[in-house]
Amino acid sequence: MNFEIEDWLKNQLEEIQNFVDEELIPIELEILHSDFFEVEPRLKALREKVKAKGLWAPHVSASIGGCGKSLMQLGLISEVLGQTMIGHYVFGCQAPDAGNTELLHKFGTDEQKEQWMKPLVNGDIRSCFGMTEPATAGSNPTLLEASAVLDGDEWVINGRKWFTSSADGAQFCIAMVVTDPDESKHKKASMIIVPTDNPGYKFIRNISIMGDVGSGYFSHAEVEFVNCRVPKSNIIGTVGSGFALAQERLGPGRIHHCMRWLGICRRSLNEMISYTKTRMITSNKSLSDLQAIQNWIAESAVEIEAARVLVLQTAWTIENVGFEAARNHVSMIKYHVANVMQRVVDKALQSHGGLGMTDDIILAHFYRHERAARIYDGPDEVHKMVVARNLLK
Amino acid sequence: MNFEIEDWLKNQLEEIQNFVDEELIPIELEILHSDFFEVEPRLKALREKVKAKGLWAPHVSASIGGCGKSLMQLGLISEVLGQTMIGHYVFGCQAPDAGNTELLHKFGTDEQKEQWMKPLVNGDIRSCFGMTEPATAGSNPTLLEASAVLDGDEWVINGRKWFTSSADGAQFCIAMVVTDPDESKHKKASMIIVPTDNPGYKFIRNISIMGDVGSGYFSHAEVEFVNCRVPKSNIIGTVGSGFALAQERLGPGRIHHCMRWLGICRRSLNEMISYTKTRMITSNKSLSDLQAIQNWIAESAVEIEAARVLVLQTAWTIENVGFEAARNHVSMIKYHVANVMQRVVDKALQSHGGLGMTDDIILAHFYRHERAARIYDGPDEVHKMVVARNLLK
Amino acid sequence: MNFEIEDWLKNQLEEIQNFVDEELIPIELEILHSDFFEVEPRLKALREKVKAKGLWAPHVSASIGGCGKSLMQLGLISEVLGQTMIGHYVFGCQAPDAGNTELLHKFGTDEQKEQWMKPLVNGDIRSCFGMTEPATAGSNPTLLEASAVLDGDEWVINGRKWFTSSADGAQFCIAMVVTDPDESKHKKASMIIVPTDNPGYKFIRNISIMGDVGSGYFSHAEVEFVNCRVPKSNIIGTVGSGFALAQERLGPGRIHHCMRWLGICRRSLNEMISYTKTRMITSNKSLSDLQAIQNWIAESAVEIEAARVLVLQTAWTIENVGFEAARNHVSMIKYHVANVMQRVVDKALQSHGGLGMTDDIILAHFYRHERAARIYDGPDEVHKMVVARNLLK
Amino acid sequence: MNFEIEDWLKNQLEEIQNFVDEELIPIELEILHSDFFEVEPRLKALREKVKAKGLWAPHVSASIGGCGKSLMQLGLISEVLGQTMIGHYVFGCQAPDAGNTELLHKFGTDEQKEQWMKPLVNGDIRSCFGMTEPATAGSNPTLLEASAVLDGDEWVINGRKWFTSSADGAQFCIAMVVTDPDESKHKKASMIIVPTDNPGYKFIRNISIMGDVGSGYFSHAEVEFVNCRVPKSNIIGTVGSGFALAQERLGPGRIHHCMRWLGICRRSLNEMISYTKTRMITSNKSLSDLQAIQNWIAESAVEIEAARVLVLQTAWTIENVGFEAARNHVSMIKYHVANVMQRVVDKALQSHGGLGMTDDIILAHFYRHERAARIYDGPDEVHKMVVARNLLK
Repeated sequence: MNFEIEDWLKNQLEEIQNFVDEELIPIELEILHSDFFEVEPRLKALREKVKAKGLWAPHVSASIGGCGKSLMQLGLISEVLGQTMIGHYVFGCQAPDAGNTELLHKFGTDEQKEQWMKPLVNGDIRSCFGMTEPATAGSNPTLLEASAVLDGDEWVINGRKWFTSSADGAQFCIAMVVTDPDESKHKKASMIIVPTDNPGYKFIRNISIMGDVGSGYFSHAEVEFVNCRVPKSNIIGTVGSGFALAQERLGPGRIHHCMRWLGICRRSLNEMISYTKTRMITSNKSLSDLQAIQNWIAESAVEIEAARVLVLQTAWTIENVGFEAARNHVSMIKYHVANVMQRVVDKALQSHGGLGMTDDIILAHFYRHERAARIYDGPDEVHKMVVARNLLK
Repeated sequence: MNFEIEDWLKNQLEEIQNFVDEELIPIELEILHSDFFEVEPRLKALREKVKAKGLWAPHVSASIGGCGKSLMQLGLISEVLGQTMIGHYVFGCQAPDAGNTELLHKFGTDEQKEQWMKPLVNGDIRSCFGMTEPATAGSNPTLLEASAVLDGDEWVINGRKWFTSSADGAQFCIAMVVTDPDESKHKKASMIIVPTDNPGYKFIRNISIMGDVGSGYFSHAEVEFVNCRVPKSNIIGTVGSGFALAQERLGPGRIHHCMRWLGICRRSLNEMISYTKTRMITSNKSLSDLQAIQNWIAESAVEIEAARVLVLQTAWTIENVGFEAARNHVSMIKYHVANVMQRVVDKALQSHGGLGMTDDIILAHFYRHERAARIYDGPDEVHKMVVARNLLK
Repeated sequence: MNFEIEDWLKNQLEEIQNFVDEELIPIELEILHSDFFEVEPRLKALREKVKAKGLWAPHVSASIGGCGKSLMQLGLISEVLGQTMIGHYVFGCQAPDAGNTELLHKFGTDEQKEQWMKPLVNGDIRSCFGMTEPATAGSNPTLLEASAVLDGDEWVINGRKWFTSSADGAQFCIAMVVTDPDESKHKKASMIIVPTDNPGYKFIRNISIMGDVGSGYFSHAEVEFVNCRVPKSNIIGTVGSGFALAQERLGPGRIHHCMRWLGICRRSLNEMISYTKTRMITSNKSLSDLQAIQNWIAESAVEIEAARVLVLQTAWTIENVGFEAARNHVSMIKYHVANVMQRVVDKALQSHGGLGMTDDIILAHFYRHERAARIYDGPDEVHKMVVARNLLK
Repeated sequence: MNFEIEDWLKNQLEEIQNFVDEELIPIELEILHSDFFEVEPRLKALREKVKAKGLWAPHVSASIGGCGKSLMQLGLISEVLGQTMIGHYVFGCQAPDAGNTELLHKFGTDEQKEQWMKPLVNGDIRSCFGMTEPATAGSNPTLLEASAVLDGDEWVINGRKWFTSSADGAQFCIAMVVTDPDESKHKKASMIIVPTDNPGYKFIRNISIMGDVGSGYFSHAEVEFVNCRVPKSNIIGTVGSGFALAQERLGPGRIHHCMRWLGICRRSLNEMISYTKTRMITSNKSLSDLQAIQNWIAESAVEIEAARVLVLQTAWTIENVGFEAARNHVSMIKYHVANVMQRVVDKALQSHGGLGMTDDIILAHFYRHERAARIYDGPDEVHKMVVARNLLK
């Protein structure tokens, strides 16, 4: 075993950290509280800076326009970027576009790559991923209701999706739909590309989530497909491969997410430390002199550190041994890191007193929106069952 | 001991519960998501219905316009009303007006009662209470900075307050200010009535809290006093009595708060039960068939029940033995019930999956805004110290 | 509602508290570390003092030799006695004898009362209750394997039991055995009295539990019935009434247990307070000056207080409204109080540092043996399911 | 970074695991429940087997009789051995002898090595370490009371120690005593070798801990030095170097302990898995089919995995970067792993129902004795303060 990080990577992480500290954190609240489309030009300018530094799109290879990092390197970058809500977007590796890019890269046809992947990698367009449905429990794929039926050379799609993140302003949606209801559980669905200017694609609303309707990239929509017709060739991979492709997306996506959450943890811990050091409670005593605060700092720090090396180990295993060997860890880190994050953010918020409740600082945003981490991509309870059943075998 | 609730009270609680279920819960989200001043007329109409039923202002005696309930009865009513964010407002016993009324009733001059208390009880005007300051730790009263200096027949007030709840649209503010900086810790401050149309009173902003700027009654402002001059007679009680009066407000206020939180708990538990019973995860199995969900229900239920009788016991002790005898319980219930609420709301939210994150239902609102319960009126940590030190004596 | 305790009861509780403090706590460790039969005479002498004070056997009416307390009064007494492991025994209301007495009192024949109940109430003999089986999950009564078959005028009993508390030295065992395997789940078993000098009754061993084999009253045995023949008339109640009788025992038994656990909580909290006040960590600072310790005290205190009023409310409901109305509370308090106790004892132990690990003080005993509270009489998980299912109805 | 374990090490760990499974686990309870001196010959025979396999004393180099493993390799071995209470003893790397050996190896004189270290490494004698005192808080070294005064060529030692593990049967004790009370805090104490047959060395008692008095290696003694005279040359290192030497022992010792605890975690998790799979609760459903049990398995597994890589990272840092760089991690892992262990053991015990309370299986032993992990070598609270203060710098 060897826990060393190579010097070039350390330097690059430091460079990114500086960029985050100097360029992103100072404006993040303003960006989050603005209409996305109004501030998009400012974000675009920042993206240009990132491109100029050669740090653009670390999740994809240079051959298609990224800066090509390994999964573990990407994880470490994701941790740094995760410290601010605008980090991944500015570096061109934001969900769901990053996952959609990977999907198209691996399984798309040349035409699909040309038409959708290239501008997506380049940041010229955005995309969304239509999976979750309001009426059916996401944890059970057999319940999926949205469907696509082949009619001549076209798929006719019907169904309703929600939590379709970033649909507002996206140029296309990858829709997970049932294509063969009689097939076995994991072979009944497919992924199909739906351009959002298709007349059968209805944008219903941005769902108000934890007080924010959001807009543009920072939103989560409800959309509907009403006799939505797209060419047969818009399918990704083969018919019935939907869940298999979703699995492919899973491993790397999980690492990104978990490392992003750890970035949030690190930021929260740092905020807790710096605020409590300066907030005086008597003329010569600061909040950080209280043992209760010290306990929170110490408990948070070790939870973060332990979770972090576990995620890195998982990334290493996926890359060096294979996804199968890492499968149980991939589930474990999901619920574990999400819960670590909730505890850390909660302590950081409490340490700020009333200020922690306000949108004057970032913690309330983390507290509200990152609560979803215990729910999306499978709630804690589902992953725990999966892990336990594997261990019980 | 006797845990019986008299029949007339049971009936009245049932009547209030029906009103809450039929008139308030169906519109609460719409109200919360609207501008307060736009929906104020609808709320006024509901208030008229409450008055017609003889249930108006249960916290004050009939002699001044209320329906005069005992502290424990009021607690039980508060629990029912607490199930919806608009309950207390519609019944005329909302914070901070209820506390301000009690203060003026006990310590106000006849003129103050006539001018401020009467219309307040009647719901014709609203008020706010300026205590917390952005620059100083609220848990340490010796740090209070806002001050009032007597200049002839006028107090000249300077200072900045925040978390001045419901200041937006309030007709007056009761300001806690230092009147004698050289006095001992608990005798240095006074409470002074400041009409909000006073030119020295500056409304700065409604603070955005957990994603909501809010408006009107549902807001928390930052305000400033800049050489703000009010008549000498605007003081409540005697000079230096500020903290003593705050203490007076404390016991009953704590009971209201805790019972309101328990109302939120009950509502959350009910939402968890009803949703998980109907949300199917397979063709014949609902979420509520999962042991994990059952555990949450069982753990929540007993935490609520235990906390509830403890708060009622505290109310009983204040009324029948006196505040001194109840003092430690008054601190205990603060942190205990606030934490019970956080755990219950969190479980209820999680049981709703993605829906729980949305503003389509009430839980996200509870999750966001009631997080403050562990902070305002003294954070957990301060109350725990107080309780422990008493027990260590 | 009324939370007052009558003066006579307060006085009696104080009298019992004094007895516990002066006569029992000073010798409890010596008793626990001795062979029971060696110290039995000393305990007998203490029992005589209790009888002389008129405080003997509070769980049964004066007509059969007790001092006849109501369920709630008994609960309050149980709380005081629970502070020491020898409290209930010295006052003649120890499990399992107390429950067996109640059973015989309600359902025994005159002969059974004469032969077994009378000397039991008087403390002349001891008894045990054979329910749990090593090979079958106690939480599922349909799995019960021990059986009794009628052969002429005799029951022929076969089967193995363990956790048969206090079997060592008991004169009789009430055995729960299947008498009609074909009957429905809750009607298949009966309770039969088995004198322990019966040749078919085999005492196998005192089970070593958490490091203690124990002896006499303070032990938990494994016993076997091998073609054990007892007269037909040894059955309690009717054939098939076993589970119904067990239910009868349940409500009051639960109150005793929970209040005893709360006595343990109170004792632990008191030990934590008194030790940390005197243990110096610097020349002028004691352990109790640490905020971490203060947090534990404050968290423990409120958990204890809340649980306590909930148990008392449950006792009141059983007595004044009936067992059915209290059924869910009877389950709730089981897992709730057992967990409160575990948390309180754990904190108290930790606050004592290394000393807490030793048998020089009582806390390690609580820590070890009261861990069972979350298991016996139905583990947490079973009660939580029961409570949740009732609430889901 | 690289998480690979070399093949030779994997094979060796597997060999050790097999030995643990086949030779140690089957007899561990019998050994623990016997008088140590009676079973010592059996343990000696097992030690010979280990020596024959070339696996003896992995903590020290081959040059002095061990099999010379690196700190991280040793950690992985310690994890395997930790699964049974007799593992480290049988492999000759048991505390406190392992630490004492390392101390003498690094700082002992040639005579000390010859006389004490050699037979210690070889397992011919045992030793103990006298640090903790009953009257003073161990967390504050300035309070240390035991002292040694130079009188001619002899140290005259006076003082009382407890939790002197394995003193019963030890041939020598390394005593931490104040040699210069006027020196600064960390320079006032020294370590001195005291042969236990010295007339001034009084073995007072084996302290009964969590129900076990223990004997021989498996015991914790209280000892006293009464004008105990030893040659001046018995000092280890220089006068006043006591705390510095203790620090030296710290890093590696912490890794051993934490990995041993993780071995206990792993064993407990395995016991939970294997028992719940086979314990039927209905005719076709086992305990492991319950979601509550699955949750415990899943929560335990990830806590163990995360803690494990964190400890290994710490070991790597100590070896490859140096103790200073790892200092905060060395504190962090102490409280973190100890608490993970307590949670895992508690869940494993609960999953066994009544059986978990008995000494028929190992879990009750873990539950009782490993509770000390949160106390010895500095309680949680002290380490948390240390970690927080470092992070606050």
